[in-house]
Amino acid sequence: MKLTSSVLAVLSFAFVFMAAPARAQGWNPPPPERRCPSQWGPNDERGAANLQTPQAVLKATRMIREGKVYELGKVLEPSMPRSGARSYVLNLARTSGPNGRNQQRGNEETVFTELGQMGTQFDGLAHQALGPHLYNCFENDALATRTGFTKLGVEKIGALFTRGVMLDIAALKGVDILPATYEITVGDLEEALRRQRVDFGAGEAVLVRTGWGRHFGADNKLFMSGEPGIGIAAAEWLAARNVMMVGSDNWAVEVRPYPDKDLFLPVHGLLLVVKGIFLLENLDLEAMSRDKIHEFALIVQPLKLKGGTGSTVAPIAVR
Amino acid sequence: MKLTSSVLAVLSFAFVFMAAPARAQGWNPPPPERRCPSQWGPNDERGAANLQTPQAVLKATRMIREGKVYELGKVLEPSMPRSGARSYVLNLARTSGPNGRNQQRGNEETVFTELGQMGTQFDGLAHQALGPHLYNCFENDALATRTGFTKLGVEKIGALFTRGVMLDIAALKGVDILPATYEITVGDLEEALRRQRVDFGAGEAVLVRTGWGRHFGADNKLFMSGEPGIGIAAAEWLAARNVMMVGSDNWAVEVRPYPDKDLFLPVHGLLLVVKGIFLLENLDLEAMSRDKIHEFALIVQPLKLKGGTGSTVAPIAVR
Amino acid sequence: MKLTSSVLAVLSFAFVFMAAPARAQGWNPPPPERRCPSQWGPNDERGAANLQTPQAVLKATRMIREGKVYELGKVLEPSMPRSGARSYVLNLARTSGPNGRNQQRGNEETVFTELGQMGTQFDGLAHQALGPHLYNCFENDALATRTGFTKLGVEKIGALFTRGVMLDIAALKGVDILPATYEITVGDLEEALRRQRVDFGAGEAVLVRTGWGRHFGADNKLFMSGEPGIGIAAAEWLAARNVMMVGSDNWAVEVRPYPDKDLFLPVHGLLLVVKGIFLLENLDLEAMSRDKIHEFALIVQPLKLKGGTGSTVAPIAVR
Amino acid sequence: MKLTSSVLAVLSFAFVFMAAPARAQGWNPPPPERRCPSQWGPNDERGAANLQTPQAVLKATRMIREGKVYELGKVLEPSMPRSGARSYVLNLARTSGPNGRNQQRGNEETVFTELGQMGTQFDGLAHQALGPHLYNCFENDALATRTGFTKLGVEKIGALFTRGVMLDIAALKGVDILPATYEITVGDLEEALRRQRVDFGAGEAVLVRTGWGRHFGADNKLFMSGEPGIGIAAAEWLAARNVMMVGSDNWAVEVRPYPDKDLFLPVHGLLLVVKGIFLLENLDLEAMSRDKIHEFALIVQPLKLKGGTGSTVAPIAVR
Repeated sequence: MKLTSSVLAVLSFAFVFMAAPARAQGWNPPPPERRCPSQWGPNDERGAANLQTPQAVLKATRMIREGKVYELGKVLEPSMPRSGARSYVLNLARTSGPNGRNQQRGNEETVFTELGQMGTQFDGLAHQALGPHLYNCFENDALATRTGFTKLGVEKIGALFTRGVMLDIAALKGVDILPATYEITVGDLEEALRRQRVDFGAGEAVLVRTGWGRHFGADNKLFMSGEPGIGIAAAEWLAARNVMMVGSDNWAVEVRPYPDKDLFLPVHGLLLVVKGIFLLENLDLEAMSRDKIHEFALIVQPLKLKGGTGSTVAPIAVR
Repeated sequence: MKLTSSVLAVLSFAFVFMAAPARAQGWNPPPPERRCPSQWGPNDERGAANLQTPQAVLKATRMIREGKVYELGKVLEPSMPRSGARSYVLNLARTSGPNGRNQQRGNEETVFTELGQMGTQFDGLAHQALGPHLYNCFENDALATRTGFTKLGVEKIGALFTRGVMLDIAALKGVDILPATYEITVGDLEEALRRQRVDFGAGEAVLVRTGWGRHFGADNKLFMSGEPGIGIAAAEWLAARNVMMVGSDNWAVEVRPYPDKDLFLPVHGLLLVVKGIFLLENLDLEAMSRDKIHEFALIVQPLKLKGGTGSTVAPIAVR
Repeated sequence: MKLTSSVLAVLSFAFVFMAAPARAQGWNPPPPERRCPSQWGPNDERGAANLQTPQAVLKATRMIREGKVYELGKVLEPSMPRSGARSYVLNLARTSGPNGRNQQRGNEETVFTELGQMGTQFDGLAHQALGPHLYNCFENDALATRTGFTKLGVEKIGALFTRGVMLDIAALKGVDILPATYEITVGDLEEALRRQRVDFGAGEAVLVRTGWGRHFGADNKLFMSGEPGIGIAAAEWLAARNVMMVGSDNWAVEVRPYPDKDLFLPVHGLLLVVKGIFLLENLDLEAMSRDKIHEFALIVQPLKLKGGTGSTVAPIAVR
Repeated sequence: MKLTSSVLAVLSFAFVFMAAPARAQGWNPPPPERRCPSQWGPNDERGAANLQTPQAVLKATRMIREGKVYELGKVLEPSMPRSGARSYVLNLARTSGPNGRNQQRGNEETVFTELGQMGTQFDGLAHQALGPHLYNCFENDALATRTGFTKLGVEKIGALFTRGVMLDIAALKGVDILPATYEITVGDLEEALRRQRVDFGAGEAVLVRTGWGRHFGADNKLFMSGEPGIGIAAAEWLAARNVMMVGSDNWAVEVRPYPDKDLFLPVHGLLLVVKGIFLLENLDLEAMSRDKIHEFALIVQPLKLKGGTGSTVAPIAVR
């Protein structure tokens, strides 16, 4: 019997994606008394942003050798994928004119959108709760007002400027795009580090490439129908290394729907609520993948939306 | 006769602010044939963003010696000053829950605002026109659609990462805040450079501190009633040095109302429309002034609003 | 001793407004088992709109003798009074053109507002809850989704066309505007009926004039600081007569702040939640007062906002 | 040869819709000097609303014999058809609570939409222009401000209460829905009047049923792709009879695309701009058609949007 190369490809593909991570399935959020106060004290509202130090900036700066800037943000436009109830509307507003002998005319635009959670986005600490509790066991109901959160607002975070590594799991697996339901394992992350010959430490950012972002804007229905991504096991491994941010080129960082059907966005819960670690969603990692750029200075400037849960951002990786 | 120190202060104050720049008064926008095509060719939509090169990044990176980050963005909140017709409304949107055994709950927010022109903001090339023409003599009416500009949109610019200098004119004059109608002169800028022992070159950013930003949020009516700032003379001097951006801690960069009553926002016209040089408004320059930081890496990440005229930003200066 | 007429006026004024209604002070909402199901059955979502019958229309129609229309709606504009977190923003949106040899051009407008609760407004049955329960003991948490209520939405109500009476309490008391904290009593309503020689029955609308609406747009801060209006005693008297709607020329129909400081908007709770009777707020009753029009056909057309809590309206009284 | 009934149906269908109205093709808007001032004088901002008189109300009132109310408004929901750039977003806003011992809780909603031009809508006099001119030759550019029109705003119109007739052209032709591109002729209208044994006069409203509204919400793409409706010939015939409003169960009243490809929305231009006659779009005329109701009191209450071009409405026909 002769195996054709395509059959071999299918077999190797099946082999590559076969190992299901068992440990994640049984996860439960730690109870409040075991997760609070956070490592930064009972009043802390900034979580892993406390890892943003001058040393982190200097370490990141040393990554900048060529002055090359990679734009990680997607263009904001009505054709973006988004969940059903979210909107993005930009209307041009032309101001009256002409004014003066210079015949000045002005233009601006009104925008109506879920500004904390649209396009390429930074998830802050008021975005998610486990039961009644936000990060550091602040009570959701007590902090949530009509016009924003009275604590944990994204305006408390500030710009993040730290060393980042990009773990290209799609490349590791030899595919353009990981399968829709693939849960990235700890082994995948470890192997990517080895092959890419990079490592990372506390206070740094880890960006995980799935290839799924290629569907963004190209097939929105498919894009939103699910996604490959990390699960609880990989998230715990990242959290144990005290990272500042975890980002991905999908819309929720984590695999969706979650393999354990009784958990809903558990990686959000673990990273944001339990650990105070930020998420970056809908990143464009294609150019870095093409250029095989795996470490860099990552710079993210969330808008200072008072009481906001996050911010649309246009982050850059600089090399 | 003995002059008290306060009388001396008043006299010296009067002396310091007395010289009115004569040349600016007679300014007229150059006719289209003398300003188009721009130095970057007839199809260019990026203006001074073309000065964003790897060399500019590397030069800026060399400013980063301590890893200290200065946040130049104001918090976005309803109490911000803004012109009459602009709005800023953030409403919390709590998604239904709890979901799963992890009792996940989610929060987000809807925001309605003039997102290109609110708070600390980056003015792009579709923001202003002189008569029928935008930058590079693109026609405003031909490009303006209901949902944004078909050319010159801010999504074309990308992040800006360049060396910046801050010229602290309020400090130079020995005041906390420059008088409301003071037009900053070329001489002021030159003297500030000398005293601060910095210089700047093509493709860099110049931030001009007036102290006026202290009124932001403290006395909005006063803040919006006028402002000290550069005039056409200083803007021409800056443009001649081919800068990438000019920013200030006031709401329009330029002195308002303009001394020549028949000109309306002429510095906007000169820098954005004629020269393709970007503006940064409502910067917070107080911390840098206190620390006497006069050169730094400036990093600005405009949101990629397709067809937008600008973007609310949260820029940083890194030292 | 000679009393001047102004002293007499003050004394008589004090006398007129002196009687505090005692019974209202002790009110508590009836427990669910005593108020549910409503008189229209356990599945009813329309409350007093069930009183809208052909007979009600015909009875109202008989009020139309002169064909005179009274506009009861206020103009919607940014200078309207409104509570802090509510917004009203209208931006003109000019569509591109000209099109065709007829050189067609189009204009429209985007509006961002709390459309159910802005200006002259109709309060529907999802607007208020007592503890966990809306009208007919529907659970607020179970019905409230991100994009509206799944039951009790204002789109279920339809137009209301019924006979209305206007009880001019300000005129009864001989004042232009009732004092800010005056609670209108049952006796006031009864006396107004007698003096105005009108009566009303089940399914009809009662509009109560306080004069407070004269502050609308003239002194918004004063207007929103409190208001004269009915209290629980008068509301119970109206509810006992099975009216369809209660309206007023103030912003909440009921006296505010409420005399019993431990009750918050109790008339809303009694009429909307317990009884399913609708409210009409910010009515303009001045022209009817001038013309001494006390009975009429009242026609209200709430917008059919799916899942909405109410609707801005422009009702008319026709005589 | 024997013709089957379906072939006969096709033939008769073809016959019924065959006659193309020749006169409309050559239409040009009358020049300003021939259409201005309007019949209500050079300063008039209300157009056919001037025909709203007590006599019109009384005449309409005489139509109300049974007290039956027909709701002509569609439900406002995100699944409504609408043209590409228009939005409709309703977000529930729960106010904080519980308050007081009555445990008051409040709900409201933010709505972002083109409120003048959404769902069942009333087109006002600032909605359309012919070249530079609105109704009564007011200049579009001079009246259009960022926040609405300084003249001709819909807040000037007030409620309309007049006798209406419904001409059921789909029923006349024996079809459920007229073909997509069918232009309703003067002959059609005249024949419908004859068969329905009704007539109408000055100041009244004419509602034209096409059946096209059955696609609303059922097949939005088809619904918006075109529509049967009146053309210039029928519009001129209606205007000559001095009607107050013309409505239909389609989205633009007039046939779309227009047979004369060089005219764009000419019926809008003729009725709104030249004649000051209002349009009602997206009416629900199905129940009246089923009940064969052809004359009635029509009541429309446009929201008083200051400077607005129209208003979403929920009109009723009362019989």
